[in-house]
Amino acid sequence: MDFSKLERVALTVRMLAVDAVEKANSGHPGLPLGAADFATVLWAKYLRFDPRNPSWANRDRFVLSAGHGCALIYALLHLFGYDLSLEEVKSFRQWGSKTPGHPEFGVTPGVEATTGPLGQGTGNSVGMALSGKLLAAEYGAELFDHRVIALVSDGDLMEGISSESASIAGHLALNNLIWVYDDNKISLAGPTSVCFSEDIPKRFEAMGWWAASVDGHDMRAFSQCMDEALKVQDRPKIICARTTIGFGSPNKAGHFDVHGSPLGADELKKTKENLGWPSDKSFFIPEEVKAFLADLIEEKRRYVGGYEERFSAWVKQNGELAAKLKTQLSRTLPGDLKQELLATFKEPKKDATRNLSGQAIQTIARKVPFFIGGSADLEPSTKTSIKGSPEIQAESFKGRNLRFGVREHGMGAVANGLAYSRAWVPFTATFLTFSDYMRPTLRLAALSELQTLFIFTHDSVYLGEDGPTHQPVEHAMALRAIPNLLVFRPADGIEVAMSYYAALSHQHGPSALLFTRQNLPALERRPGFNPDEILNGAYIVSGEEVSDLILVATGSEVSLAVEVAAKLKAAGKAARVVSMPCMELFLKLDDAKRAALIPPRARKVSLEAGITMGWERIVGLDGVRIGIDRFGASAPAEVLAKELGLSVSAVYARIVGDLNVP
Amino acid sequence: MDFSKLERVALTVRMLAVDAVEKANSGHPGLPLGAADFATVLWAKYLRFDPRNPSWANRDRFVLSAGHGCALIYALLHLFGYDLSLEEVKSFRQWGSKTPGHPEFGVTPGVEATTGPLGQGTGNSVGMALSGKLLAAEYGAELFDHRVIALVSDGDLMEGISSESASIAGHLALNNLIWVYDDNKISLAGPTSVCFSEDIPKRFEAMGWWAASVDGHDMRAFSQCMDEALKVQDRPKIICARTTIGFGSPNKAGHFDVHGSPLGADELKKTKENLGWPSDKSFFIPEEVKAFLADLIEEKRRYVGGYEERFSAWVKQNGELAAKLKTQLSRTLPGDLKQELLATFKEPKKDATRNLSGQAIQTIARKVPFFIGGSADLEPSTKTSIKGSPEIQAESFKGRNLRFGVREHGMGAVANGLAYSRAWVPFTATFLTFSDYMRPTLRLAALSELQTLFIFTHDSVYLGEDGPTHQPVEHAMALRAIPNLLVFRPADGIEVAMSYYAALSHQHGPSALLFTRQNLPALERRPGFNPDEILNGAYIVSGEEVSDLILVATGSEVSLAVEVAAKLKAAGKAARVVSMPCMELFLKLDDAKRAALIPPRARKVSLEAGITMGWERIVGLDGVRIGIDRFGASAPAEVLAKELGLSVSAVYARIVGDLNVP
Repeated sequence: MDFSKLERVALTVRMLAVDAVEKANSGHPGLPLGAADFATVLWAKYLRFDPRNPSWANRDRFVLSAGHGCALIYALLHLFGYDLSLEEVKSFRQWGSKTPGHPEFGVTPGVEATTGPLGQGTGNSVGMALSGKLLAAEYGAELFDHRVIALVSDGDLMEGISSESASIAGHLALNNLIWVYDDNKISLAGPTSVCFSEDIPKRFEAMGWWAASVDGHDMRAFSQCMDEALKVQDRPKIICARTTIGFGSPNKAGHFDVHGSPLGADELKKTKENLGWPSDKSFFIPEEVKAFLADLIEEKRRYVGGYEERFSAWVKQNGELAAKLKTQLSRTLPGDLKQELLATFKEPKKDATRNLSGQAIQTIARKVPFFIGGSADLEPSTKTSIKGSPEIQAESFKGRNLRFGVREHGMGAVANGLAYSRAWVPFTATFLTFSDYMRPTLRLAALSELQTLFIFTHDSVYLGEDGPTHQPVEHAMALRAIPNLLVFRPADGIEVAMSYYAALSHQHGPSALLFTRQNLPALERRPGFNPDEILNGAYIVSGEEVSDLILVATGSEVSLAVEVAAKLKAAGKAARVVSMPCMELFLKLDDAKRAALIPPRARKVSLEAGITMGWERIVGLDGVRIGIDRFGASAPAEVLAKELGLSVSAVYARIVGDLNVP
Repeated sequence: MDFSKLERVALTVRMLAVDAVEKANSGHPGLPLGAADFATVLWAKYLRFDPRNPSWANRDRFVLSAGHGCALIYALLHLFGYDLSLEEVKSFRQWGSKTPGHPEFGVTPGVEATTGPLGQGTGNSVGMALSGKLLAAEYGAELFDHRVIALVSDGDLMEGISSESASIAGHLALNNLIWVYDDNKISLAGPTSVCFSEDIPKRFEAMGWWAASVDGHDMRAFSQCMDEALKVQDRPKIICARTTIGFGSPNKAGHFDVHGSPLGADELKKTKENLGWPSDKSFFIPEEVKAFLADLIEEKRRYVGGYEERFSAWVKQNGELAAKLKTQLSRTLPGDLKQELLATFKEPKKDATRNLSGQAIQTIARKVPFFIGGSADLEPSTKTSIKGSPEIQAESFKGRNLRFGVREHGMGAVANGLAYSRAWVPFTATFLTFSDYMRPTLRLAALSELQTLFIFTHDSVYLGEDGPTHQPVEHAMALRAIPNLLVFRPADGIEVAMSYYAALSHQHGPSALLFTRQNLPALERRPGFNPDEILNGAYIVSGEEVSDLILVATGSEVSLAVEVAAKLKAAGKAARVVSMPCMELFLKLDDAKRAALIPPRARKVSLEAGITMGWERIVGLDGVRIGIDRFGASAPAEVLAKELGLSVSAVYARIVGDLNVP
């Protein structure tokens, strides 16, 4: 590798990035100026990819966890031949461009993860590295030997999620993972010395990583350090690359105000002069840089071409396994999945939906080989273990049961990393109240349209004695607030089956699945019921003929609604019971379909063991909204039902009183 | 200290705890059985407290971060003379008892923090230790020399928040903080070896802590280790106490199923026999244990009595400072605070509410000496620095500006720790989208009725070019979902002033304060407007005389509503504009007051640059809900307003179209 030419590339990267920030009059020049040297070495010498085939399954992944530095990656993507024109780079941070203010997966070819919320990329990179190990275990290391390199900042490393993620990676000894720490001693608000005094190499060694430090501006030294890191075969690696933020800016280098504001026309000019760059040009790419990169790209493409030849030969020799791989990489569901899921629950029985979920998981695991996941140290409670499948551990990647430890946030980000790899439908599991711990990962899955399944058990105060710290009340509705997330709260086995089916069919977004700790009866549904109705998000359980009093309920409250309806009927007043396992799907129905289920002029009641906010959307301000608008309490479930006004008689009394029926 | 007697105490603690779990038929016997030995040493020999004066300001704090082990602390509290009767211990986990399933601050005398969601107690303990250092810096180390000891589990240490909190404590060199790690190698779901392979002492040393390991069942060795730790004066300390979970249970000790389920009658009997305890007795406390503890408690009370004498003398000699301390410990607001806050904004001007918040903070800091806080490395953006006050750093605790680093979750928990100390009104600050990172701390502040102020700037898509990763849309409403949390989204300086005043006056719960990045005009309000109206959560800005068309808006959308109302008026249709800076306070008004602001029969429009879910509660299903029910995008703010349908003309068109006006 000709380092003098590489230095010119790095300089071009720098200048493209700061020109983009300047033109947008918005953005972060500090990181691109500082990290361009080692990033260029990584892209030129180490990353294996084909820019014309950005979804090549065995490509090396580069994750810019410090997403605010995205001008860097846009410059690199353009220079290295990805489908990102110079016009796009010039449209940095503008409406409709492929160059948004933080990297967005699915928007920009070559961007592997949506980053910006700090720390997320660290967890995503762990998931991607794990995906590589899992695929290698199944299909062979000669097919899957890609590396995952994440650029992390001090902000990433201060976030707890990076400790959780690093601990998981260290425990699993993910030797295909390298983090390069852009160690510039400056964060947004000042020198890191005001709040960050960790010994980073030691911290990572304590978590089972190999660690080294190097001058991030010395390309040769950095390259030697990478070579050393690549020799380490028994653990993940971190390279602490010492850099100067805003490198080259005569008046701003090394100062925090270069982190997140444009240099300004004058300082930009001086920076160009200082670095020996034509100061009268913007978005300038020297011809010799173009030529050098063209050769380099050609070399990378030859490497990928060679792989593709070996891959074709492998496909011919491994018919069945190759077919499995094809299914996995397209995440194609078997045609009989729905029938198999429904068959799992053909014998109605009283059970907790967490147990029913556990049964559904066995069926799915049998039918869908790319379904994989685990819990945050709650498996005996969440019932999410895939029976008969080995546990994934270091050097033992054949299996589908993951042990995330008590690390909900890391769990979510690692699962998203698996989803970004496009070879898995990952699931996570914990108690619903701890959805708060991993909420940023749900949001990013929704924003990035990742098919991550977030399983949450113990979904209401009815978990009982563990008390209000563990009892969700606001969580179901707070999850419904996240755009592009489907939230399912099924009431029995059939609903569990169809909720999983809907979630598995929803490839362009995440789903949250909420299950009870306590037993629920299997519902008796009206004649003519078709399970596909559940895919509408809501359907009529009973009382189809009634159109003036509608009880709408979810999950554990559907059977309560059925009991209340029986009591009303005994008093001479019929009611329709509508189960609504997924409010989002119901709200996507057209007006007529919604009105057929819940007639607008009917008197309406909502029933959910959680806050009532949001239920006005379904039953209106004149409807009765029955729920729990306070924190729960530590007591047995049946006591809570009584004390919190959710017993059959209390609900009956409220309906009779508030709606003046019968 | 007579260790043989202490062993009897520890055994009594064990037996009380497992009897309580058994009677409740629910709970966690593993931790109390395992940790009783070292916990008894801590309580008997090290913690300085007076059980009859549990709010003594200089008491040592014991935080059970592993809150699931609360039977341990209830046993200790009862035995050490707190106002927690044996009947209460017997009512473990029952409705209305003082012994809920996880410790709850404010419910049980002597419980210092609500814990259970793992990791929270670690951050709380850092806040409490910090409080001690701050008070010592202000009032003298002879008055405030208390220690904070937290019992942490492997689950606590796996949670990222514990790394964030430990890093803050290490950076600040909090030498009055000790964590005792109940290192039992077992978590809920199995041996920790399946997911947790960190070198804990090394990890903590990397973060600036002193670390040691010891046999947690060897009382003498543990005590020696504590003595050593107390000699270390330049950093926080962690003692890794190796224990056996479920110690004493012949068939369950050392196994994960003793973590969270009662022993069962048979195994409980065998455990008692095994430990030489009368197996026919429940909740038995030997007389000699009572006598030994009575002496010990007397000794502790004498120590506190001595302190109180010194304190009285100090008060006499330090009139002014003593008055300040009294004000601080009662968190009494100055009588003229409201006037001073309003005076800050007597000149109306166009500005971002984050800047106006920054001005309000200066006023508050001047008037309220116990107002303290900082941001998660976003100070230049959040505008939350207290001018003229030093930055708090190690060995420099005189000041009120905290540097939390990029650690939102730890920030929230540390701030809650300050609030638990009852000597501060702490505030945190970050961007609204990152409220997701710290949501568990908002929930716990609300549940524990802590007066923590959570400041969130960049409160909508109008932050612009940073794009959807940084643009909140669902967050304001998701915060409103949390019970007992007040959410303020003020529209201009007067509203900022009154929002802060309301938050500072709301002593029994947290507040979230949402501010814009972008400039907003100062509102022109109707004649006769009184700023106190803002304390109702909503008030009439203009159009008092109009009762049939009401535009309800918050924050940046209030001025939009004013513009739209002007356009409607020009078209011959008057509208009333209602600003709603705090929906929770509005919803607390009685029906008549609400109807006076928003007449039920009026046509209603809500305007907020966020999701519309929840606004049905205010404007009904027949109202027009204008908002953003999708993720944002990276673009300048004015482009976003246009593209997302929030320009004056777009809003006008929707109102005219949907409501058929004028």
